[in-house]
Amino acid sequence: MTTNKHEIIQAVVERGFDASMSDLARLCAIPGVSAKGESLEPCAELVAELMRAAGLEADLLDVPDGPPAVFGTLRSSIEDAPTVLFYNHYDVQPAEPLHLWTSEPFTLTFRDGKAFARGVGDDKGHITSRLLSLIAVRQACGGSLPFHVKFLAEGEEEVGSPHLGAFIEKNADLLRADACIWEEGNVDDDGKPVLYCGMRGIAYFELSCTTSTMDAHSGVGGSVLPNAAWRLVWALGTLKNSSEQILIPGHYAPAKLASLRDLELLDALPGSEAFLRQQFGLAPDGALGGARTTGLEFKRRAVFEPTLTICGLESGWQGAGAKTVLPCKATAKIDFRLVPDQDPDEVHKALRAHLDSSGFSDIEIKCLSSQKPARVDPDHPLVQLAAETAEMVYGTRADIVPIVGGSGPMWWFSGFLGMPITSPGVEYPGTRQHAPDENIRISDYLLGTRHLAHLLLDLPRLYAAN
Amino acid sequence: MTTNKHEIIQAVVERGFDASMSDLARLCAIPGVSAKGESLEPCAELVAELMRAAGLEADLLDVPDGPPAVFGTLRSSIEDAPTVLFYNHYDVQPAEPLHLWTSEPFTLTFRDGKAFARGVGDDKGHITSRLLSLIAVRQACGGSLPFHVKFLAEGEEEVGSPHLGAFIEKNADLLRADACIWEEGNVDDDGKPVLYCGMRGIAYFELSCTTSTMDAHSGVGGSVLPNAAWRLVWALGTLKNSSEQILIPGHYAPAKLASLRDLELLDALPGSEAFLRQQFGLAPDGALGGARTTGLEFKRRAVFEPTLTICGLESGWQGAGAKTVLPCKATAKIDFRLVPDQDPDEVHKALRAHLDSSGFSDIEIKCLSSQKPARVDPDHPLVQLAAETAEMVYGTRADIVPIVGGSGPMWWFSGFLGMPITSPGVEYPGTRQHAPDENIRISDYLLGTRHLAHLLLDLPRLYAAN
Repeated sequence: MTTNKHEIIQAVVERGFDASMSDLARLCAIPGVSAKGESLEPCAELVAELMRAAGLEADLLDVPDGPPAVFGTLRSSIEDAPTVLFYNHYDVQPAEPLHLWTSEPFTLTFRDGKAFARGVGDDKGHITSRLLSLIAVRQACGGSLPFHVKFLAEGEEEVGSPHLGAFIEKNADLLRADACIWEEGNVDDDGKPVLYCGMRGIAYFELSCTTSTMDAHSGVGGSVLPNAAWRLVWALGTLKNSSEQILIPGHYAPAKLASLRDLELLDALPGSEAFLRQQFGLAPDGALGGARTTGLEFKRRAVFEPTLTICGLESGWQGAGAKTVLPCKATAKIDFRLVPDQDPDEVHKALRAHLDSSGFSDIEIKCLSSQKPARVDPDHPLVQLAAETAEMVYGTRADIVPIVGGSGPMWWFSGFLGMPITSPGVEYPGTRQHAPDENIRISDYLLGTRHLAHLLLDLPRLYAAN
Repeated sequence: MTTNKHEIIQAVVERGFDASMSDLARLCAIPGVSAKGESLEPCAELVAELMRAAGLEADLLDVPDGPPAVFGTLRSSIEDAPTVLFYNHYDVQPAEPLHLWTSEPFTLTFRDGKAFARGVGDDKGHITSRLLSLIAVRQACGGSLPFHVKFLAEGEEEVGSPHLGAFIEKNADLLRADACIWEEGNVDDDGKPVLYCGMRGIAYFELSCTTSTMDAHSGVGGSVLPNAAWRLVWALGTLKNSSEQILIPGHYAPAKLASLRDLELLDALPGSEAFLRQQFGLAPDGALGGARTTGLEFKRRAVFEPTLTICGLESGWQGAGAKTVLPCKATAKIDFRLVPDQDPDEVHKALRAHLDSSGFSDIEIKCLSSQKPARVDPDHPLVQLAAETAEMVYGTRADIVPIVGGSGPMWWFSGFLGMPITSPGVEYPGTRQHAPDENIRISDYLLGTRHLAHLLLDLPRLYAAN
């Protein structure tokens, strides 16, 4: 009987693949770039349409000051069945720099067993994959799911979900569930699936400096007029030194060190050093992230260390050739990645105090995005079930990652709503999220979709004792 | 007789004004932006046409690897008359940022007694003014000039005249003259004309850093991948501290201090502090360029101090909102202003050595422009004659400025060709050179054109003893 269901799942996923790719192509063709506010509502409408086509009831919910959230539901015929919440997002990162894309970023294109488009992995491909999983489980169960479904897709994840928290606070009862399936997941270099049990937080700021009302001739003003670009460079220099130490007083104090269990889990994972070197064209010798950062220490540093990244710099003349101008304005975008229990609001306050006390009260700070760090117990039954059910699809248990380097609104689901979370998915280490030529492999799409279906099929037994 | 000639000059300049403005409008309508290589040859052709209309023989001369130079000549009927070389340039700075212009930058527009356009002062308005001066002197002298004319207009001054030196070396005999009229000049805040006896040199570099082959997700790479923007910020931080001291070893050693005569000349000049504060919207209290920089020290610092200006910064995401990217490339444009006897080639070498020894051998340096600093003896008879003849037009002698903060290829004329140089002109302190809303006042155009005509009329007597 169980075997039979698994066979049905495999058959439905394979049969449904072409239609799922057609859905994904339509979804990728609507950019939905949240950083630019580009085509978000049309993207949301299509997600609702795809949910309805998969048998859910779906509506667009108003998110004050933000693009709409898509919310779909599907009730099981078993009234006291557990409820699963899917959290996804329909927005994507900007496609720039456009000239580095091999094919059009918003046209789903197949090459070498892969599908390319902005958002194909992060996160539109997961929306279509999850819907196909639900269709497969329903067919395997004779038409009715053994769990209730809540499916949320927001439109601002790539700009830090600025309005999701208030939306969740207001709709906590609507959204709360027994388990949460996270928006994305992937396999590792060896094709082994990986489950994520946490995300770093983020505090993303725009620093800007305005020294006068207009740019000046650098020969006339160079000796006597203030230069916004220099002010910004000097201010940035007080934030982190070239040994990668963040210099803001107290910044590291709330940062929890990795536990022995965390290090045990990290140690069991394959290393990504060689892959990163190859992917980013780095020298094969020498450690990344510092002279002694390799092996387990590399893995620890990559996710358990607070970071401060300059994401963008802009000032004065950036065109070709020489323009002898003294800029009156300069801007930097910076992001802090936070580990438990660092708090983005506290980081904001400490940054302001540090710039003030370093003589840079003229540097303006605008917070563009913030997320608290989040953790899920890696030994929670939901996580363990997700690891086990991977074996039926991938022939191996999934690896468990205690926390990832990236950020997302996970705390709202794990912390505020108090749900266990796990993350089967369809990406791989070459997905190039946020970069040109973002892609997923067809084989991962099929396997990840089946894995989720198996996990969902077995999910009710976790809650049978209740 | 002399009075009569002066009356003719005034009448011809006033009568010729409208036609001169029409010529200037045509010239401003062809951008000629050397930084972008935009419409330089059409601009040169029009300059040659305008020279011919003023009675000169004019041709475009080939400048290897650069846009053509325009070269015009007009022989006096007096064979042993002295020769005057006019040095001008037909290229302009980019008009960006475009949204800050009140009217179209490449359309000559009149408002409030002023003419606005990119290049209206620097330097196209001087080309048309000088041609009108020549017409006036010729008419005052009954049809033939009392001096021979050589008129050079190059097309790369705004990018540092990279090919002018080689052109002058090759055409030294063609270009050499007894006196040189510099490309531009202006009156001060009180409407008093100012003559310039030197220019700072310049060494303009693009610094760039490439840390990997593509941008990365800042959450994934923040702890372990190198960040080009940080590398650049740290490298820049080693070049100048927030007290405006240039930190490259030996940088100040060849810099000659101002002489007592220089300080005497500076002291006689009106201060520009209040004007700069007003023009750039700066606070009315507090000194510019450092706590004790005011009065004579302000004047000294503005022109006799070596500078290092960041002219541009570029890296990563510069659009709206938050993009969580770790940039693989970062670029800065920087310019050093040099005083005698600093040498741009030596600065280049010292910059490379300093970055290498500071741990930044990964920062690439590209020299985009360089000029040697230049001086002319402020007591040379040509300069004194220019100061005296101002009185007939402005009712006051001109002030003499020992050196200006800006740079230009003056050394090639004063040093290499060994000519005295002076600089009557049509600009004023509100001209906004290189900035949006560049403009000149109509009244300055008329006075500056007459001043040059008077100077040229009296010039032969300097050489009569020969």
